[in-house]
Amino acid sequence: MSDAVQDHYPDETAWCYGCGRLNADGLHVQSRWESDESVARHTPDDKYIAIPGFVYGGLLASLIDCHGTGTAALAAYRAAGREPGTQPPLRFVTASLQVDFLAPTPLGVELVLRARPVEVKERKVVSEIELFAGDQVTVRGRVVAVLAPDAMFER
Amino acid sequence: MSDAVQDHYPDETAWCYGCGRLNADGLHVQSRWESDESVARHTPDDKYIAIPGFVYGGLLASLIDCHGTGTAALAAYRAAGREPGTQPPLRFVTASLQVDFLAPTPLGVELVLRARPVEVKERKVVSEIELFAGDQVTVRGRVVAVLAPDAMFER
Repeated sequence: MSDAVQDHYPDETAWCYGCGRLNADGLHVQSRWESDESVARHTPDDKYIAIPGFVYGGLLASLIDCHGTGTAALAAYRAAGREPGTQPPLRFVTASLQVDFLAPTPLGVELVLRARPVEVKERKVVSEIELFAGDQVTVRGRVVAVLAPDAMFER
Repeated sequence: MSDAVQDHYPDETAWCYGCGRLNADGLHVQSRWESDESVARHTPDDKYIAIPGFVYGGLLASLIDCHGTGTAALAAYRAAGREPGTQPPLRFVTASLQVDFLAPTPLGVELVLRARPVEVKERKVVSEIELFAGDQVTVRGRVVAVLAPDAMFER
């Protein structure tokens, strides 16, 4: 069984450009536990530049956002003593996103996002996320995620 | 002369995926004054879905981000009593981005971003931005933009 939580999103909620496994054009963010941190790794395509040599902020915000919702799901499953893929599905969406750009993020290297859930409730998870380019934290983020409304599963 | 500030960005800083006129793959956000508001209009491509029928948050964050830096430049030129395109160029980058998702944003309609600069200093501009889908504000953002370091122009 995959340890990436996005691989367990119900089909009807697996189309997100940032993290949906069914979106052929998308970024395919995948979030998995590494002990108490939720980690995602991503090497941006060359087109996502801010200025030549550096990643544009919108992509970095997107990675933070989708890794935040993935981390929320991971944390909620863990808090419930369940594995992703068990029923009912736990799918979170973003209510609020904060991104601080600390330094330019170089293009051409794998970026590593490390998230810590700092508040875990049944319907709300807050995560703090650091984005690393090599050893350097270039972006810091905070995602408030809320459990997706049932209407999302009824389309 | 174009009234979109991004059309006046120096070539070496006009490659941003979000707003660079030279990025063939990009979103081409364009920001222009409509009296005291800076406005950008964008109809997302169908691939940028969250779930079917709705725009994914990362794209919305990208639009807020790039319209925030564009608005910062517009505000800085206006504060200096100068037109975009006059020398020296004023090019801002994002220090901090806050995005609140108030309601799902429907796909398939033109989105209108309306920004108000709420703090305008020589090297720092803060803007508050609302994103409209029709009459509804679906996303609210706040961008702290800072004047780009000279190093950006020396590559």
